[in-house]
Amino acid sequence: MQFDLTILGSNGAIPAYDRHPSSHILNYNGHLFLIDCGEGTQFQLNKYGIKRGRLDNIFISHLHGDHYFGLIGLLTSFNLNWREHPLHIYGPAGLEEIMNVHFKHSKTQLKFEIHYHPIVDDEPRVIYEDSFLQVETIILKHRLPTTGFLFKEKVGLRKILIEKINEYGIPFGQIPGIKKGADFTDAHGKTIPNAELTAYPHTPRSYAYCSDTVYTEHFVAQVKEVGLLYHEATFVDEHTARALETFHTTGRQAATVAKQAGAKKLVIGHFSARYENLDLLLSQSREVFPETYLAIEGTVFEI
Amino acid sequence: MQFDLTILGSNGAIPAYDRHPSSHILNYNGHLFLIDCGEGTQFQLNKYGIKRGRLDNIFISHLHGDHYFGLIGLLTSFNLNWREHPLHIYGPAGLEEIMNVHFKHSKTQLKFEIHYHPIVDDEPRVIYEDSFLQVETIILKHRLPTTGFLFKEKVGLRKILIEKINEYGIPFGQIPGIKKGADFTDAHGKTIPNAELTAYPHTPRSYAYCSDTVYTEHFVAQVKEVGLLYHEATFVDEHTARALETFHTTGRQAATVAKQAGAKKLVIGHFSARYENLDLLLSQSREVFPETYLAIEGTVFEI
Repeated sequence: MQFDLTILGSNGAIPAYDRHPSSHILNYNGHLFLIDCGEGTQFQLNKYGIKRGRLDNIFISHLHGDHYFGLIGLLTSFNLNWREHPLHIYGPAGLEEIMNVHFKHSKTQLKFEIHYHPIVDDEPRVIYEDSFLQVETIILKHRLPTTGFLFKEKVGLRKILIEKINEYGIPFGQIPGIKKGADFTDAHGKTIPNAELTAYPHTPRSYAYCSDTVYTEHFVAQVKEVGLLYHEATFVDEHTARALETFHTTGRQAATVAKQAGAKKLVIGHFSARYENLDLLLSQSREVFPETYLAIEGTVFEI
Repeated sequence: MQFDLTILGSNGAIPAYDRHPSSHILNYNGHLFLIDCGEGTQFQLNKYGIKRGRLDNIFISHLHGDHYFGLIGLLTSFNLNWREHPLHIYGPAGLEEIMNVHFKHSKTQLKFEIHYHPIVDDEPRVIYEDSFLQVETIILKHRLPTTGFLFKEKVGLRKILIEKINEYGIPFGQIPGIKKGADFTDAHGKTIPNAELTAYPHTPRSYAYCSDTVYTEHFVAQVKEVGLLYHEATFVDEHTARALETFHTTGRQAATVAKQAGAKKLVIGHFSARYENLDLLLSQSREVFPETYLAIEGTVFEI
């Protein structure tokens, strides 16, 4: 099953050096999830050839413009392109009022339904669930109420181990029950516990999006052993005080979170417009967590 | 005095082929005027190296998103870049509510003043004036209340004709008065009327922005002999019925307006996303008005 992340926007609040504001596309087996939607996200979808008809769920972290100013344009283009299937949007409550004021003044009649799901940000909550994935909020610490998002693959049915079928002479008729968790009793009346006969088909994969936030460790337990962690890294070490003051993070701090969480891989982004060259940001992060990568636009990260 | 137009966005409602929504920059002797502000206008200002500190007046034609979705991002970037001098915005009344809803939810405290000037669209009105330029609204016919903008250079003091100084022996002391309109009485008591002694320093230059609108001739008299006419041209001949239905114009119709107005030059834009190649649109326009040019982004037109 395909599970990957495409970076559409990598920059912080002020666009610079042809880097765009925050926006990520997560692709799970052809189903697309948009995470944040800064200005120009619809241009980036075009540029990277992403099929927006497969996008049914949009997650907005907070109401600073670099995380949502592209949403109204994307919705308008959906409408002009005769989208008919429903769209779900998860974000702060105020965003619904913003959308509605735009639609009122442009006298827009939507051809598709928008289901708006306001996020309650008191504690981590499951806000989305389907047969394969679930999405939990991550409570972040920023100047406005802000949540990250943890996408976790659901573990499917357990897989029966071929060698155990032979070893215990398990009849085929009993295999479906064992996959669902049943134990097996052999011809001698001996019970073999399910855990000995089966295994999960693969380790469940996961992706955590953490932007924007000041450095904090309070959500580390929630993202323990996450496969891919995206964490904002607005500043280099030299501007650590500025990071604290503006409720942002340095590359080194993002890497510390990744290390403490035991993440497999870290992607950093939300770069300050003061840095044209990002080498220093990357090297400072890698001193703490070698498996760090820059969120270069157009890059696809396998999860 | 420099007076030119830079095309920042050329496309109609749905961005396509790396063409952006409507946005023009008019430069009058270093003073910048932004006309419409589709999504991504701030990226285009960066791309074409336009110094936004010299931009003090923004004109918005109507509240379809492809003409204003970039405004809130531009204002936010002004604020993050510590703009302090006031900004004037001229547009439909509803735009002020839209801006304020955004600022409310992002808890934005502006560091500069915005003076919002709601446009009354009952008839053409002068909405801006300085020592060199005035701007009148042009009433257009679209699905929402829409105005174009006519930028007219003010004619300065009349220039005295050198040969008349010699012919009539005009003393230097009288020249300032004659420049301001006085007649001259010569040594024999004969009065030479001012009109014979002076001329305007140059023909006043003008630029008219007409987008969006269905084909109409009602404003032709207002833009008579305009130097540069920008007129939307969303469709080719084949889609003339669609133009009428959606309150847009074909290239041929735009050219007809230019011809009737006796414009010196026509620029067409607001291209439909259905056309990757614009050759047909251009050739159909040039059949009617040979001095037609496509609004290719980044092009600078002298006025």
